[in-house]
Amino acid sequence: MLDVVGHPLAALVRGRRPGYSLDAPFYVSPEIFAADMEIIFGHHWIYVGVEPDVPEPGDAMVVDIGKDSIIIVRDDENRVVAFHNVCRHRGARILHNEKTTVGNIVCRYHSWTYDLSGALIHAEHMGPGFDRSCHGLKPVHLRSLEGLLFICLADEPPADFDDMARVMGPYIAPHDLRNTKIAFQSELIEKGNWKLVMENNRECYHCAGNHPELTIPLFAYGFGFAPEDMDEHERANAHRYSCMVQERHDGWEAAGLPSREVEHLADRVTGFRTERLPLDGEGEAHTLDTRAASKKLLGSFKTAKLGALSFWTQPNSWHHFMSDHIVTFSAIPLDADNTLVRTKWLVHKDAVEGVDYDIDRLTEVWQATNVQDAELVGFCQQGARSPAYEPGPYSPNTEMLVEKFCSWYVGRLADHLGL
Amino acid sequence: MLDVVGHPLAALVRGRRPGYSLDAPFYVSPEIFAADMEIIFGHHWIYVGVEPDVPEPGDAMVVDIGKDSIIIVRDDENRVVAFHNVCRHRGARILHNEKTTVGNIVCRYHSWTYDLSGALIHAEHMGPGFDRSCHGLKPVHLRSLEGLLFICLADEPPADFDDMARVMGPYIAPHDLRNTKIAFQSELIEKGNWKLVMENNRECYHCAGNHPELTIPLFAYGFGFAPEDMDEHERANAHRYSCMVQERHDGWEAAGLPSREVEHLADRVTGFRTERLPLDGEGEAHTLDTRAASKKLLGSFKTAKLGALSFWTQPNSWHHFMSDHIVTFSAIPLDADNTLVRTKWLVHKDAVEGVDYDIDRLTEVWQATNVQDAELVGFCQQGARSPAYEPGPYSPNTEMLVEKFCSWYVGRLADHLGL
Amino acid sequence: MLDVVGHPLAALVRGRRPGYSLDAPFYVSPEIFAADMEIIFGHHWIYVGVEPDVPEPGDAMVVDIGKDSIIIVRDDENRVVAFHNVCRHRGARILHNEKTTVGNIVCRYHSWTYDLSGALIHAEHMGPGFDRSCHGLKPVHLRSLEGLLFICLADEPPADFDDMARVMGPYIAPHDLRNTKIAFQSELIEKGNWKLVMENNRECYHCAGNHPELTIPLFAYGFGFAPEDMDEHERANAHRYSCMVQERHDGWEAAGLPSREVEHLADRVTGFRTERLPLDGEGEAHTLDTRAASKKLLGSFKTAKLGALSFWTQPNSWHHFMSDHIVTFSAIPLDADNTLVRTKWLVHKDAVEGVDYDIDRLTEVWQATNVQDAELVGFCQQGARSPAYEPGPYSPNTEMLVEKFCSWYVGRLADHLGL
Repeated sequence: MLDVVGHPLAALVRGRRPGYSLDAPFYVSPEIFAADMEIIFGHHWIYVGVEPDVPEPGDAMVVDIGKDSIIIVRDDENRVVAFHNVCRHRGARILHNEKTTVGNIVCRYHSWTYDLSGALIHAEHMGPGFDRSCHGLKPVHLRSLEGLLFICLADEPPADFDDMARVMGPYIAPHDLRNTKIAFQSELIEKGNWKLVMENNRECYHCAGNHPELTIPLFAYGFGFAPEDMDEHERANAHRYSCMVQERHDGWEAAGLPSREVEHLADRVTGFRTERLPLDGEGEAHTLDTRAASKKLLGSFKTAKLGALSFWTQPNSWHHFMSDHIVTFSAIPLDADNTLVRTKWLVHKDAVEGVDYDIDRLTEVWQATNVQDAELVGFCQQGARSPAYEPGPYSPNTEMLVEKFCSWYVGRLADHLGL
Repeated sequence: MLDVVGHPLAALVRGRRPGYSLDAPFYVSPEIFAADMEIIFGHHWIYVGVEPDVPEPGDAMVVDIGKDSIIIVRDDENRVVAFHNVCRHRGARILHNEKTTVGNIVCRYHSWTYDLSGALIHAEHMGPGFDRSCHGLKPVHLRSLEGLLFICLADEPPADFDDMARVMGPYIAPHDLRNTKIAFQSELIEKGNWKLVMENNRECYHCAGNHPELTIPLFAYGFGFAPEDMDEHERANAHRYSCMVQERHDGWEAAGLPSREVEHLADRVTGFRTERLPLDGEGEAHTLDTRAASKKLLGSFKTAKLGALSFWTQPNSWHHFMSDHIVTFSAIPLDADNTLVRTKWLVHKDAVEGVDYDIDRLTEVWQATNVQDAELVGFCQQGARSPAYEPGPYSPNTEMLVEKFCSWYVGRLADHLGL
Repeated sequence: MLDVVGHPLAALVRGRRPGYSLDAPFYVSPEIFAADMEIIFGHHWIYVGVEPDVPEPGDAMVVDIGKDSIIIVRDDENRVVAFHNVCRHRGARILHNEKTTVGNIVCRYHSWTYDLSGALIHAEHMGPGFDRSCHGLKPVHLRSLEGLLFICLADEPPADFDDMARVMGPYIAPHDLRNTKIAFQSELIEKGNWKLVMENNRECYHCAGNHPELTIPLFAYGFGFAPEDMDEHERANAHRYSCMVQERHDGWEAAGLPSREVEHLADRVTGFRTERLPLDGEGEAHTLDTRAASKKLLGSFKTAKLGALSFWTQPNSWHHFMSDHIVTFSAIPLDADNTLVRTKWLVHKDAVEGVDYDIDRLTEVWQATNVQDAELVGFCQQGARSPAYEPGPYSPNTEMLVEKFCSWYVGRLADHLGL
């Protein structure tokens, strides 16, 4: 438990200047990193993966969050449940591979054996006084939002997950994530604090100069601009874009696809935002030719031209749902200076690689974009280490969501610290 | 010197729950690691090697213990002595290779030269006021127990080394270690705290599931079991094993080989335990065919079937003396998370490789076992880092010696801290 | 800002024993390293490179000092200026390569653009309230001493740079550094504290035993000796050397080349020392055959036999100016245990590689010497980590300048701490 009284973190939280990037210690201090892991990642809903990670009973996945290692397993009743990956005997880590299939959960050290409900069912040599029922695996809260898996390490998780699920369910459900499979997964360690990874994700001001692939499907006007800097031609284009979004939203919603923006990034414990946005060109997917990457459309979609439903959560995820595939990202802090970004590309579970989809075509936009973002995040981490760094101003036109991320983050700290 | 007043270590020491693994900070905290290096490794007898490491006058060995580097050298009077490996001029480390042969001990930086008694005998340019006699190498306490070398970094080493030597001398002497040579040496860095390495060494509950090679010569019943879990058949086997041990002890002792258990793991400053145990199969050695690995038997042994005399010391060694070879292990802490295990296989000094013994055959059981143990120790270190870790119960039947190790360790801390 | 009150550094500073190497924490403590970076490297003139590093307008060099990254750029008016390498928007590091040529200084993240005076001249989407004039690059003090570039990270740099420049200008100017080019540059990370690197540089007591190449051009008697240890023959040689130095100084000074020793290593904030010394053999340069390495002599020199003008500065540089080439060294601390030594070999800007000079011949003496020194510095760092280390005595005959370095260093800390 963090020592709150007189903690320098309190002064930093109180002194945060809205509209500006955070003070350097928030990005570089190991102490604040430890506080982040306790306050943010220890007490909020963390996105960790998808139900297709563990499609069958006995399928298990290990996810490490800071010093915690979590087993996520599908039990014999087809429920996805989570446990701490720590044997109750001598504390050994039990499962070591990211993915495995098990009958029971067996610790190799002394063969202590737990069933898929976490109960200790076998432990040799422990003598007559030993009570197995006191030595089950410790459970971890887990929720599935239409197949997106969130865990919470706290004893009492934030209650507003239900609100988010109620709002987001109708947006996500049509993409039928539970009937997808993971076509590809990448893991990239970005050399920057997790908050710089999140800030980078919350704006597209940097897209034009850095993401030649992503800006093919994405509309330039979709992520904010300064109206006073525009000439008449640009202003007309921006207006046309705005009308198009309106028109598409109307059409999609009439067809039963919720599309309009919902934004609760900074006013909820479990902050989130969503919107379905049209794409450029053929308008089907985040691909270099803007066409669908998989021939098998998801759910019961009849047309590929559905733009991309984006879903952003605080503190650590973003997702793009298209007609034919889903790309889903989690940011996992490793230390003050390094963050793991895990990306999964999902296609219909019956789609056949080489027939219905090609891995390169499916992944090339976001593989390239991730690498570009990693470099930019690294530049910011290097800069934040400099004594000459001082918080700089966010653009009021293109970095509003970065500000909301920071405001949410600082607010969550303040709440935890009782400030 | 450790700051004792109000040190959180004191609370952890006081709060230790007997019969349970240690609290996580004992395994993962850099501060407690520093305390261990001062209190345990700075004030106890540490096993570091054998006389055959430095067989001839001028032969020198460098052993690093934490931040200390120690020169162990055989002087011209054939005594083995030890010095700090630090030049008294500018503080340079003097010897750099693990093994070397020297006439004098010369610092390369400015050619300051010390003889094998540590006296400074040459230092140029130091002017008329300079007193060489004040600038000799700093000595380190060293004791040889029938050829096993122990050092102590404290000014006043524990006096009970003599008691251990008096008891152990007759057990070890027949194996005539001084007339052996090092046939092979391995160094393995286990990714765990040194105490997890020691705990792993102090039980064989994990052997059946993890050591397919070691369990060929070792009897399954030799390391404890829960009688109440056994069926009639197992109970009969255990009884037969117990009778065999008794019978062998009688025979060996009648033949002049002390064999019965002596156990002072937790009730002495210099804790130790010994026992000569029969081996399975041919009963000769820790080999895959349970036969002797070297044709030249040690000392004046006439038969190879002598089982294995084991000798365990606190804080950092274990040894197996057989009729034909000796395997000796030291655990050297590197940091809270890493421990060097150095293993030496000794055979008769006149044994010829390829004729009398084969390195692979000699070493394969313990090479495999060390690697297996390293993995298990790593699993425990990973688990101990988890906030979900909590001390678990030791088996009262198979982990009594683990408990004695922990009890000794915590007791030594308490004694040092005046608790 | 360092917390001074009750800082253990104060006790160490007060307790320093003159004539002895420093207490171990000065070499190994991360906290004292941080204090060094603030007090010494944050408030003194640091040597970083030469004007030929940025020969043309728009040429930029990046130099990292601790956590600071500095852009050194030649502006359109041909002035060399310096800025912090941190964008004023989101804090990204701007330039990433050691050398580059730019029109403006552009941050890749969001294309914020600064001109070569550091002014922000372009920043999109920032809205009408944004004042570009408040968001220029932060300047860093920079001075050129006849082409040697020094920066100071403090707001108010030490004023006595001018004194040093006034004294040193006439010594250095004849070598016409501004009309040289960098023929070769090496970067070597020495595994020791920066002060051990400096101490190593401030004496040649270690040369005879460690530098077979360097001692070809250098006279053995040039760096001190203990007269009382010498026999009659050595005494005569030392006397002859002393007379030769006197005679050469007279001759060089008559020819307009200031040569006599000036020494202010310990009595100035900006400590320095210089002397022109004769070389052995042909007496022309630090080469294996003691002849000039480049056919194009520097400045308006007519003869190559000018010995070597050496210039040492506190805290971090040394330089050797010869008739045909210049070798210049900077020591940049990386952490308590590691120091970057950057060496540049300069020849006349019109000299042609392969025709006028050969890289191997030019660099082989100091390349070898640097590697040898790095090993020695590493030995000292290893030794200083040992609890058995204690400060040892400097030779009053050969290590006087080491003592002056330490005395200057401790004095600068004392002054900063108000002791």
